[in-house]
Amino acid sequence: MTRTLKLTISYDGTRFVGWQRQARVEARGESIQGLIEEALARFEGGPVTVHGAGRTDAGVHALGQVASVQLTGGHATSELLRGLNASLPPDIRIIGVDEVAADFHARFSARSKTYRYLIRNASIVSPFERPYVWHVPEPLDVAAMRAAACALVGTHDFAAFRSTGTETKDTTRTITESQVALTTDVGRALSGSPGGPDRVRPTNDHILLVYNVTGNGFLRHMVRAIVGTLVEIGRGRRPGTSLPALLAPASRAEAGATAPPHGLFLVGVDYHGIERVA
Amino acid sequence: MTRTLKLTISYDGTRFVGWQRQARVEARGESIQGLIEEALARFEGGPVTVHGAGRTDAGVHALGQVASVQLTGGHATSELLRGLNASLPPDIRIIGVDEVAADFHARFSARSKTYRYLIRNASIVSPFERPYVWHVPEPLDVAAMRAAACALVGTHDFAAFRSTGTETKDTTRTITESQVALTTDVGRALSGSPGGPDRVRPTNDHILLVYNVTGNGFLRHMVRAIVGTLVEIGRGRRPGTSLPALLAPASRAEAGATAPPHGLFLVGVDYHGIERVA
Repeated sequence: MTRTLKLTISYDGTRFVGWQRQARVEARGESIQGLIEEALARFEGGPVTVHGAGRTDAGVHALGQVASVQLTGGHATSELLRGLNASLPPDIRIIGVDEVAADFHARFSARSKTYRYLIRNASIVSPFERPYVWHVPEPLDVAAMRAAACALVGTHDFAAFRSTGTETKDTTRTITESQVALTTDVGRALSGSPGGPDRVRPTNDHILLVYNVTGNGFLRHMVRAIVGTLVEIGRGRRPGTSLPALLAPASRAEAGATAPPHGLFLVGVDYHGIERVA
Repeated sequence: MTRTLKLTISYDGTRFVGWQRQARVEARGESIQGLIEEALARFEGGPVTVHGAGRTDAGVHALGQVASVQLTGGHATSELLRGLNASLPPDIRIIGVDEVAADFHARFSARSKTYRYLIRNASIVSPFERPYVWHVPEPLDVAAMRAAACALVGTHDFAAFRSTGTETKDTTRTITESQVALTTDVGRALSGSPGGPDRVRPTNDHILLVYNVTGNGFLRHMVRAIVGTLVEIGRGRRPGTSLPALLAPASRAEAGATAPPHGLFLVGVDYHGIERVA
Protein backbone atom coordinates (compact mmCIF):
# COMPACT_ATOMS: atom_id res chain seq x y z
CA MET A 1 0.00 0.00 0.00
CA THR A 2 1.30 3.40 -0.93
CA ARG A 3 1.10 6.13 1.68
CA THR A 4 1.67 9.86 1.18
CA LEU A 5 3.68 11.55 3.90
CA LYS A 6 4.22 15.20 4.67
CA LEU A 7 7.62 16.04 6.14
CA THR A 8 8.25 19.34 7.92
CA ILE A 9 11.92 20.21 7.83
CA SER A 10 14.24 22.76 9.41
CA TYR A 11 17.73 23.31 8.06
CA ASP A 12 20.74 25.56 8.24
CA GLY A 13 21.45 26.11 4.55
CA THR A 14 25.00 27.37 5.05
CA ARG A 15 26.92 24.45 3.58
CA PHE A 16 24.42 23.09 1.05
CA VAL A 17 24.03 23.66 -2.70
CA GLY A 18 20.37 24.37 -1.92
CA TRP A 19 17.19 22.34 -1.53
CA GLN A 20 17.36 20.73 -4.95
CA ARG A 21 19.35 17.67 -5.93
CA GLN A 22 21.80 18.68 -8.65
CA ALA A 23 21.54 16.79 -11.92
CA ARG A 24 24.77 18.01 -13.50
CA VAL A 25 27.74 16.09 -12.14
CA GLU A 26 30.00 19.16 -12.07
CA ALA A 27 27.45 21.06 -9.96
CA ARG A 28 27.20 18.31 -7.38
CA GLY A 29 27.42 19.05 -3.74
CA GLU A 30 25.19 18.04 -0.88
CA SER A 31 21.58 19.11 -1.32
CA ILE A 32 18.90 18.91 1.34
CA GLN A 33 16.56 17.04 -0.98
CA GLY A 34 19.29 14.54 -1.89
CA LEU A 35 20.19 13.80 1.73
CA ILE A 36 16.53 13.32 2.74
CA GLU A 37 15.95 11.03 -0.23
CA GLU A 38 18.99 8.96 0.76
CA ALA A 39 17.78 8.70 4.35
CA LEU A 40 14.28 7.66 3.20
CA ALA A 41 15.69 5.12 0.73
CA ARG A 42 17.20 3.24 3.68
CA PHE A 43 13.69 2.78 5.13
CA GLU A 44 12.10 2.03 1.79
CA GLY A 45 14.81 -0.27 0.49
CA GLY A 46 14.83 1.49 -2.87
CA PRO A 47 14.97 4.92 -4.51
CA VAL A 48 12.57 7.60 -3.29
CA THR A 49 11.62 11.00 -4.72
CA VAL A 50 10.79 13.85 -2.39
CA HIS A 51 8.97 17.01 -3.55
CA GLY A 52 9.72 20.23 -1.66
CA ALA A 53 7.31 23.17 -1.35
CA GLY A 54 10.04 25.74 -1.99
CA ARG A 55 13.29 25.13 -3.84
CA THR A 56 15.51 27.24 -1.60
CA ASP A 57 18.83 28.40 -3.08
CA ALA A 58 22.32 27.68 -1.78
CA GLY A 59 22.78 29.31 1.62
CA VAL A 60 19.05 29.86 2.25
CA HIS A 61 17.68 28.39 5.50
CA ALA A 62 14.35 26.85 6.48
CA LEU A 63 12.39 26.81 9.71
CA GLY A 64 9.46 24.91 8.21
CA GLN A 65 10.10 23.65 4.70
CA VAL A 66 7.52 21.06 3.68
CA ALA A 67 8.12 18.04 1.47
CA SER A 68 5.85 15.23 0.28
CA VAL A 69 6.85 11.67 -0.46
CA GLN A 70 5.12 8.42 -1.33
CA LEU A 71 6.27 5.35 0.57
CA THR A 72 5.23 1.71 0.47
CA GLY A 73 6.83 0.67 3.77
CA GLY A 74 4.61 0.52 6.84
CA HIS A 75 6.83 2.33 9.33
CA ALA A 76 5.01 4.39 11.96
CA THR A 77 5.44 8.16 11.54
CA SER A 78 7.15 8.40 14.95
CA GLU A 79 9.62 5.72 13.87
CA LEU A 80 10.33 7.61 10.63
CA LEU A 81 10.84 10.85 12.54
CA ARG A 82 13.37 9.24 14.88
CA GLY A 83 15.09 7.19 12.19
CA LEU A 84 15.42 10.03 9.67
CA ASN A 85 16.91 12.35 12.28
CA ALA A 86 19.34 9.62 13.33
CA SER A 87 20.67 9.27 9.80
CA LEU A 88 20.55 12.92 8.67
CA PRO A 89 23.34 15.39 9.55
CA PRO A 90 22.50 17.70 12.49
CA ASP A 91 22.07 20.76 10.24
CA ILE A 92 18.95 19.12 8.78
CA ARG A 93 16.18 18.17 11.24
CA ILE A 94 12.85 16.58 10.42
CA ILE A 95 10.48 18.30 12.85
CA GLY A 96 7.30 16.56 11.78
CA VAL A 97 6.09 13.51 9.85
CA ASP A 98 2.36 13.29 9.06
CA GLU A 99 0.32 10.88 7.01
CA VAL A 100 -1.73 12.91 4.51
CA ALA A 101 -4.30 12.49 1.74
CA ALA A 102 -3.00 10.51 -1.27
CA ASP A 103 -3.15 13.52 -3.63
CA PHE A 104 -1.21 15.86 -1.36
CA HIS A 105 1.79 17.44 -3.10
CA ALA A 106 4.03 19.78 -1.10
CA ARG A 107 4.41 22.24 -3.98
CA PHE A 108 1.18 22.04 -5.94
CA SER A 109 -1.12 21.84 -2.89
CA ALA A 110 0.49 24.88 -1.19
CA ARG A 111 -1.83 27.87 -0.73
CA SER A 112 0.79 30.25 0.60
CA LYS A 113 4.37 30.44 1.80
CA THR A 114 6.00 32.70 4.35
CA TYR A 115 9.58 33.89 4.13
CA ARG A 116 11.61 35.91 6.62
CA TYR A 117 14.73 37.95 5.99
CA LEU A 118 17.06 39.20 8.74
CA ILE A 119 19.09 42.40 8.44
CA ARG A 120 21.50 43.36 11.21
CA ASN A 121 21.83 47.11 11.28
CA ALA A 122 24.83 47.64 13.57
CA SER A 123 28.50 48.46 13.30
CA ILE A 124 29.58 44.98 14.42
CA VAL A 125 27.81 41.66 13.87
CA SER A 126 28.04 38.97 16.56
CA PRO A 127 29.98 35.89 15.41
CA PHE A 128 26.94 33.81 16.43
CA GLU A 129 24.60 35.67 14.10
CA ARG A 130 26.83 36.13 11.09
CA PRO A 131 25.56 33.10 9.08
CA TYR A 132 21.92 34.23 9.45
CA VAL A 133 21.86 37.97 8.82
CA TRP A 134 22.74 40.47 6.14
CA HIS A 135 25.04 43.02 7.73
CA VAL A 136 24.08 46.57 6.76
CA PRO A 137 26.19 48.99 8.84
CA GLU A 138 24.82 52.27 7.38
CA PRO A 139 21.90 53.99 9.16
CA LEU A 140 18.55 52.85 7.78
CA ASP A 141 15.32 54.81 7.53
CA VAL A 142 13.11 52.07 8.95
CA ALA A 143 9.91 54.11 8.57
CA ALA A 144 10.52 54.49 4.82
CA MET A 145 11.23 50.77 4.52
CA ARG A 146 8.03 49.93 6.42
CA ALA A 147 5.92 52.11 4.15
CA ALA A 148 7.50 50.63 1.03
CA ALA A 149 7.04 47.06 2.33
CA CYS A 150 3.31 47.78 2.76
CA ALA A 151 2.97 48.83 -0.86
CA LEU A 152 3.76 45.27 -1.96
CA VAL A 153 0.61 43.82 -0.40
CA GLY A 154 -1.93 42.89 -3.07
CA THR A 155 -1.87 41.26 -6.50
CA HIS A 156 0.91 42.69 -8.64
CA ASP A 157 3.24 41.91 -11.50
CA PHE A 158 6.57 41.12 -9.83
CA ALA A 159 8.61 40.87 -13.06
CA ALA A 160 11.02 43.52 -11.71
CA PHE A 161 11.82 41.23 -8.77
CA ARG A 162 12.54 37.96 -10.50
CA SER A 163 15.91 36.46 -11.25
CA THR A 164 17.18 37.45 -14.70
CA GLY A 165 17.28 34.52 -17.10
CA THR A 166 14.25 32.69 -15.71
CA GLU A 167 11.52 31.68 -18.10
CA THR A 168 8.36 31.85 -15.98
CA LYS A 169 5.68 33.51 -18.10
CA ASP A 170 3.20 34.50 -15.43
CA THR A 171 4.91 36.95 -13.10
CA THR A 172 1.77 37.96 -11.20
CA ARG A 173 1.69 37.00 -7.53
CA THR A 174 -0.50 37.89 -4.56
CA ILE A 175 1.20 39.08 -1.38
CA THR A 176 -0.92 38.99 1.77
CA GLU A 177 1.67 40.09 4.33
CA SER A 178 4.74 42.26 3.84
CA GLN A 179 6.11 44.01 6.87
CA VAL A 180 9.28 45.08 8.59
CA ALA A 181 9.48 44.39 12.34
CA LEU A 182 12.26 45.22 14.78
CA THR A 183 13.82 42.98 17.36
CA THR A 184 17.14 42.49 19.14
CA ASP A 185 18.48 39.06 18.36
CA VAL A 186 18.26 36.21 15.91
CA GLY A 187 16.95 33.74 18.51
CA ARG A 188 13.96 35.98 19.07
CA ALA A 189 13.47 36.54 15.34
CA LEU A 190 13.38 32.81 14.68
CA SER A 191 11.17 31.75 17.59
CA GLY A 192 7.45 32.15 17.69
CA SER A 193 7.37 32.73 21.43
CA PRO A 194 6.51 35.92 23.35
CA GLY A 195 9.15 38.60 23.19
CA GLY A 196 9.34 38.14 19.43
CA PRO A 197 9.37 40.95 16.90
CA ASP A 198 8.16 44.31 18.22
CA ARG A 199 7.79 43.08 21.82
CA VAL A 200 11.34 44.08 22.75
CA ARG A 201 12.74 47.56 22.36
CA PRO A 202 16.08 47.32 20.54
CA THR A 203 18.87 49.78 21.32
CA ASN A 204 19.72 52.27 18.61
CA ASP A 205 23.08 50.84 17.67
CA HIS A 206 21.99 47.24 17.52
CA ILE A 207 18.84 46.77 15.51
CA LEU A 208 17.74 43.54 13.88
CA LEU A 209 15.25 44.16 11.09
CA VAL A 210 12.93 41.26 10.41
CA TYR A 211 11.16 41.33 7.06
CA ASN A 212 8.20 38.94 6.87
CA VAL A 213 6.44 38.22 3.61
CA THR A 214 3.58 35.83 2.84
CA GLY A 215 2.25 35.17 -0.63
CA ASN A 216 0.58 32.61 -2.85
CA GLY A 217 3.85 32.10 -4.71
CA PHE A 218 7.26 33.64 -5.25
CA LEU A 219 9.38 34.04 -8.35
CA ARG A 220 13.02 32.96 -8.23
CA HIS A 221 15.05 35.40 -6.05
CA MET A 222 11.90 37.49 -5.54
CA VAL A 223 12.21 37.88 -1.76
CA ARG A 224 15.91 38.76 -2.00
CA ALA A 225 15.23 41.33 -4.76
CA ILE A 226 12.48 42.88 -2.62
CA VAL A 227 14.83 43.04 0.39
CA GLY A 228 17.64 44.53 -1.73
CA THR A 229 15.21 47.21 -2.92
CA LEU A 230 13.90 47.93 0.60
CA VAL A 231 17.47 48.36 1.86
CA GLU A 232 18.24 50.82 -0.96
CA ILE A 233 15.17 52.77 0.19
CA GLY A 234 16.37 52.55 3.81
CA ARG A 235 19.78 53.87 2.81
CA GLY A 236 18.15 56.79 1.01
CA ARG A 237 19.45 55.68 -2.37
CA ARG A 238 15.96 55.54 -3.86
CA PRO A 239 12.74 57.24 -2.71
CA GLY A 240 10.34 55.13 -0.65
CA THR A 241 7.57 56.17 -2.97
CA SER A 242 9.39 54.59 -5.94
CA LEU A 243 8.18 51.11 -5.06
CA PRO A 244 4.67 51.12 -6.60
CA ALA A 245 6.20 52.03 -9.98
CA LEU A 246 8.20 48.80 -9.88
CA LEU A 247 4.93 46.85 -9.89
CA ALA A 248 3.78 48.63 -13.07
CA PRO A 249 5.30 46.15 -14.46
CA ALA A 250 8.96 47.12 -14.75
CA SER A 251 12.23 45.44 -15.72
CA ARG A 252 14.62 43.72 -13.30
CA ALA A 253 17.17 46.52 -13.73
CA GLU A 254 14.77 49.05 -12.23
CA ALA A 255 14.52 47.29 -8.85
CA GLY A 256 17.33 47.00 -6.30
CA ALA A 257 20.18 44.50 -6.14
CA THR A 258 19.52 40.96 -4.89
CA ALA A 259 20.19 40.62 -1.15
CA PRO A 260 22.57 37.81 -0.10
CA PRO A 261 21.01 34.35 0.43
CA HIS A 262 22.16 33.70 4.01
CA GLY A 263 19.71 36.18 5.60
CA LEU A 264 16.71 34.35 4.12
CA PHE A 265 14.51 31.74 5.85
CA LEU A 266 11.56 29.78 4.50
CA VAL A 267 9.36 30.05 7.60
CA GLY A 268 6.47 27.83 6.64
CA VAL A 269 3.98 26.67 4.06
CA ASP A 270 0.24 26.85 4.49
CA TYR A 271 -2.17 24.31 2.99
CA HIS A 272 -5.36 25.56 4.67
CA GLY A 273 -5.75 22.09 6.13
CA ILE A 274 -6.28 20.37 2.80
CA GLU A 275 -3.50 17.90 3.55
CA ARG A 276 -5.25 16.30 6.49
CA VAL A 277 -6.35 12.71 6.20
CA ALA A 278 -10.13 12.85 6.60
CA MET B 1 55.79 55.08 23.73
CA THR B 2 54.31 51.78 24.79
CA ARG B 3 50.57 51.64 25.43
CA THR B 4 48.63 48.83 27.07
CA LEU B 5 45.34 47.97 25.40
CA LYS B 6 42.44 45.87 26.59
CA LEU B 7 40.58 44.00 23.86
CA THR B 8 37.11 42.58 24.43
CA ILE B 9 36.45 39.73 22.04
CA SER B 10 33.50 37.59 20.98
CA TYR B 11 34.03 34.40 19.02
CA ASP B 12 32.34 31.30 17.76
CA GLY B 13 34.84 28.63 18.80
CA THR B 14 33.48 25.92 16.49
CA ARG B 15 36.35 25.71 13.99
CA PHE B 16 39.29 26.78 16.16
CA VAL B 17 41.89 24.75 18.08
CA GLY B 18 41.04 27.00 21.03
CA TRP B 19 42.17 30.39 22.32
CA GLN B 20 45.83 29.50 22.58
CA ARG B 21 48.39 29.58 19.80
CA GLN B 22 49.76 26.04 19.39
CA ALA B 23 53.52 25.64 19.77
CA ARG B 24 53.81 22.09 18.44
CA VAL B 25 53.79 22.03 14.65
CA GLU B 26 51.68 18.87 14.44
CA ALA B 27 49.00 20.41 16.67
CA ARG B 28 48.71 23.53 14.55
CA GLY B 29 45.39 24.83 13.46
CA GLU B 30 43.89 28.29 13.65
CA SER B 31 43.76 29.68 17.17
CA ILE B 32 41.95 32.83 18.21
CA GLN B 33 45.06 34.20 19.92
CA GLY B 34 47.17 33.52 16.81
CA LEU B 35 44.75 35.26 14.44
CA ILE B 36 44.45 38.33 16.69
CA GLU B 37 48.24 38.52 17.02
CA GLU B 38 48.59 38.37 13.24
CA ALA B 39 46.00 41.12 12.77
CA LEU B 40 47.72 43.31 15.39
CA ALA B 41 51.16 42.67 13.86
CA ARG B 42 49.95 44.37 10.67
CA PHE B 43 49.28 47.56 12.66
CA GLU B 44 52.44 47.27 14.71
CA GLY B 45 54.76 46.30 11.86
CA GLY B 46 56.28 43.52 13.95
CA PRO B 47 55.42 40.55 16.18
CA VAL B 48 52.94 41.09 19.00
CA THR B 49 51.99 38.93 21.99
CA VAL B 50 48.43 38.96 23.28
CA HIS B 51 47.48 37.62 26.73
CA GLY B 52 43.97 36.22 27.14
CA ALA B 53 42.04 36.14 30.42
CA GLY B 54 40.81 32.59 29.84
CA ARG B 55 42.43 29.98 27.63
CA THR B 56 39.27 28.50 26.17
CA ASP B 57 39.54 24.99 24.71
CA ALA B 58 38.78 23.90 21.16
CA GLY B 59 35.07 24.39 20.44
CA VAL B 60 34.44 26.71 23.40
CA HIS B 61 32.89 30.09 22.57
CA ALA B 62 33.24 33.59 24.04
CA LEU B 63 30.84 36.49 24.40
CA GLY B 64 33.35 38.68 26.26
CA GLN B 65 36.85 37.21 26.32
CA VAL B 66 39.41 39.83 27.39
CA ALA B 67 42.99 40.12 26.15
CA SER B 68 45.77 42.58 26.89
CA VAL B 69 48.51 43.69 24.55
CA GLN B 70 51.30 46.25 24.55
CA LEU B 71 51.68 48.31 21.40
CA THR B 72 54.07 51.07 20.38
CA GLY B 73 52.03 52.39 17.42
CA GLY B 74 49.85 55.43 17.98
CA HIS B 75 46.67 54.24 16.28
CA ALA B 76 43.44 55.50 17.82
CA THR B 77 41.38 52.81 19.59
CA SER B 78 38.47 53.34 17.16
CA GLU B 79 40.86 52.85 14.24
CA LEU B 80 42.17 49.63 15.81
CA LEU B 81 38.62 48.37 16.40
CA ARG B 82 37.66 48.94 12.77
CA GLY B 83 40.95 47.72 11.33
CA LEU B 84 41.12 44.54 13.41
CA ASN B 85 37.56 43.57 12.50
CA ALA B 86 38.32 44.22 8.84
CA SER B 87 41.23 41.78 8.88
CA LEU B 88 39.86 39.12 11.25
CA PRO B 89 37.48 36.38 10.02
CA PRO B 90 33.80 37.03 10.82
CA ASP B 91 33.69 34.33 13.53
CA ILE B 92 36.01 36.50 15.65
CA ARG B 93 34.83 40.03 16.44
CA ILE B 94 36.62 42.63 18.52
CA ILE B 95 33.78 44.34 20.39
CA GLY B 96 35.89 46.78 22.39
CA VAL B 97 39.35 48.37 22.43
CA ASP B 98 40.30 50.40 25.52
CA GLU B 99 43.52 52.04 26.58
CA VAL B 100 44.31 50.82 30.12
CA ALA B 101 46.90 51.26 32.89
CA ALA B 102 50.39 50.07 31.91
CA ASP B 103 50.39 47.18 34.41
CA PHE B 104 47.04 45.75 33.30
CA HIS B 105 47.25 42.06 32.40
CA ALA B 106 44.11 40.32 31.15
CA ARG B 107 44.81 37.15 33.13
CA PHE B 108 46.65 38.27 36.26
CA SER B 109 44.51 41.38 36.85
CA ALA B 110 41.21 39.46 36.56
CA ARG B 111 39.13 39.34 39.74
CA SER B 112 36.46 36.99 38.45
CA LYS B 113 35.22 35.26 35.34
CA THR B 114 31.73 34.22 34.31
CA TYR B 115 30.96 31.19 32.19
CA ARG B 116 27.65 30.01 30.77
CA TYR B 117 26.72 26.53 29.60
CA LEU B 118 23.67 25.76 27.44
CA ILE B 119 21.80 22.44 27.62
CA ARG B 120 18.91 21.79 25.23
CA ASN B 121 16.50 19.40 26.88
CA ALA B 122 14.24 18.39 24.00
CA SER B 123 13.74 15.49 21.64
CA ILE B 124 14.98 17.44 18.60
CA VAL B 125 17.57 20.24 18.48
CA SER B 126 17.12 23.05 15.97
CA PRO B 127 19.85 23.09 13.28
CA PHE B 128 20.50 26.73 14.22
CA GLU B 129 21.28 25.90 17.85
CA ARG B 130 23.21 22.71 17.42
CA PRO B 131 26.74 24.25 17.55
CA TYR B 132 25.95 26.03 20.85
CA VAL B 133 24.11 23.55 23.04
CA TRP B 134 24.60 20.16 24.60
CA HIS B 135 21.65 18.01 23.52
CA VAL B 136 20.27 16.01 26.45
CA PRO B 137 17.02 14.34 25.31
CA GLU B 138 16.21 12.49 28.58
CA PRO B 139 13.90 14.20 31.12
CA LEU B 140 15.87 16.27 33.64
CA ASP B 141 15.02 16.97 37.26
CA VAL B 142 15.73 20.69 37.07
CA ALA B 143 14.93 21.28 40.76
CA ALA B 144 17.58 18.76 41.81
CA MET B 145 20.10 20.37 39.44
CA ARG B 146 19.29 23.82 40.81
CA ALA B 147 19.82 22.70 44.41
CA ALA B 148 23.10 20.97 43.52
CA ALA B 149 24.34 24.04 41.59
CA CYS B 150 23.75 26.16 44.71
CA ALA B 151 25.94 23.89 46.81
CA LEU B 152 28.98 24.95 44.75
CA VAL B 153 28.85 28.55 45.93
CA GLY B 154 31.65 29.31 48.38
CA THR B 155 35.34 28.49 48.71
CA HIS B 156 35.96 24.82 48.03
CA ASP B 157 38.56 22.36 46.83
CA PHE B 158 37.56 21.62 43.23
CA ALA B 159 40.12 18.83 42.65
CA ALA B 160 37.31 16.46 41.64
CA PHE B 161 36.37 18.84 38.80
CA ARG B 162 39.73 19.44 37.18
CA SER B 163 41.08 17.85 34.04
CA THR B 164 43.10 14.71 34.79
CA GLY B 165 46.78 15.14 34.04
CA THR B 166 46.98 18.81 34.97
CA GLU B 167 49.62 19.87 37.43
CA THR B 168 48.03 22.80 39.23
CA LYS B 169 48.84 22.42 42.95
CA ASP B 170 46.25 24.75 44.45
CA THR B 171 42.82 23.46 43.55
CA THR B 172 40.86 25.79 45.84
CA ARG B 173 38.59 28.29 44.12
CA THR B 174 35.83 30.63 45.22
CA ILE B 175 32.51 30.51 43.38
CA THR B 176 30.21 33.50 43.87
CA GLU B 177 27.39 32.54 41.50
CA SER B 178 26.26 29.09 40.40
CA GLN B 179 22.73 28.75 39.14
CA VAL B 180 20.55 27.03 36.61
CA ALA B 181 18.03 29.22 34.76
CA LEU B 182 15.46 28.26 32.15
CA THR B 183 14.74 29.94 28.87
CA THR B 184 13.47 29.09 25.39
CA ASP B 185 16.17 29.90 22.88
CA VAL B 186 19.86 30.46 22.43
CA GLY B 187 19.44 34.07 21.28
CA ARG B 188 17.77 34.88 24.58
CA ALA B 189 20.36 32.94 26.56
CA LEU B 190 23.20 34.88 24.95
CA SER B 191 21.69 38.35 25.08
CA GLY B 192 21.59 40.50 28.17
CA SER B 193 18.30 42.13 27.21
CA PRO B 194 14.87 41.78 28.84
CA GLY B 195 13.18 38.49 28.26
CA GLY B 196 16.39 36.67 29.19
CA PRO B 197 16.61 33.66 31.49
CA ASP B 198 13.57 33.10 33.67
CA ARG B 199 11.54 35.88 32.06
CA VAL B 200 10.00 33.57 29.50
CA ARG B 201 8.07 30.42 30.33
CA PRO B 202 9.45 27.57 28.23
CA THR B 203 7.18 24.80 27.05
CA ASN B 204 7.72 21.40 28.59
CA ASP B 205 9.15 19.68 25.57
CA HIS B 206 11.56 22.42 24.61
CA ILE B 207 13.59 23.64 27.55
CA LEU B 208 16.93 25.40 27.32
CA LEU B 209 18.85 25.14 30.59
CA VAL B 210 21.30 27.95 31.14
CA TYR B 211 23.97 27.29 33.75
CA ASN B 212 25.76 30.46 34.92
CA VAL B 213 28.86 30.30 37.08
CA THR B 214 31.11 33.10 38.35
CA GLY B 215 34.31 32.54 40.29
CA ASN B 216 37.72 33.96 41.05
CA GLY B 217 39.31 31.28 38.91
CA PHE B 218 38.58 27.98 37.20
CA LEU B 219 40.67 24.82 36.86
CA ARG B 220 41.05 23.27 33.43
CA HIS B 221 37.71 21.70 32.31
CA MET B 222 36.17 22.67 35.66
CA VAL B 223 32.95 24.17 34.28
CA ARG B 224 32.41 21.24 31.93
CA ALA B 225 33.00 18.71 34.76
CA ILE B 226 30.51 20.61 36.95
CA VAL B 227 27.93 20.58 34.13
CA GLY B 228 28.52 16.88 33.46
CA THR B 229 27.90 16.19 37.15
CA LEU B 230 24.79 18.37 37.28
CA VAL B 231 23.33 16.56 34.28
CA GLU B 232 23.97 13.17 35.93
CA ILE B 233 22.04 14.52 38.93
CA GLY B 234 19.28 15.77 36.60
CA ARG B 235 19.05 12.35 34.96
CA GLY B 236 18.74 10.71 38.36
CA ARG B 237 22.01 8.82 37.97
CA ARG B 238 23.44 10.32 41.17
CA PRO B 239 21.65 11.90 44.14
CA GLY B 240 21.49 15.69 44.21
CA THR B 241 22.81 15.59 47.75
CA SER B 242 26.02 13.90 46.54
CA LEU B 243 27.54 17.15 45.38
CA PRO B 244 28.93 18.53 48.67
CA ALA B 245 30.93 15.31 49.15
CA LEU B 246 32.77 16.03 45.89
CA LEU B 247 34.14 19.21 47.44
CA ALA B 248 35.62 17.27 50.38
CA PRO B 249 38.14 17.04 48.43
CA ALA B 250 37.56 14.07 46.17
CA SER B 251 39.18 12.54 43.09
CA ARG B 252 38.24 13.30 39.49
CA ALA B 253 36.70 9.83 39.10
CA GLU B 254 34.08 10.60 41.75
CA ALA B 255 32.54 13.52 39.83
CA GLY B 256 30.59 13.25 36.58
CA ALA B 257 31.86 13.04 33.01
CA THR B 258 33.11 16.18 31.27
CA ALA B 259 30.36 17.89 29.25
CA PRO B 260 31.16 18.61 25.58
CA PRO B 261 32.98 21.90 24.81
CA HIS B 262 30.52 23.41 22.33
CA GLY B 263 27.86 24.29 24.96
CA LEU B 264 30.33 26.48 26.88
CA PHE B 265 30.69 30.27 26.65
CA LEU B 266 33.13 32.58 28.42
CA VAL B 267 30.65 35.36 29.17
CA GLY B 268 32.94 37.99 30.64
CA VAL B 269 35.81 38.91 32.90
CA ASP B 270 35.57 41.33 35.77
CA TYR B 271 38.45 43.56 36.87
CA HIS B 272 36.54 45.66 39.42
CA GLY B 273 37.55 48.72 37.44
CA ILE B 274 41.27 48.36 38.12
CA GLU B 275 42.06 48.46 34.44
CA ARG B 276 40.85 52.00 33.95
CA VAL B 277 43.39 54.67 33.05
CA ALA B 278 43.27 57.14 35.99
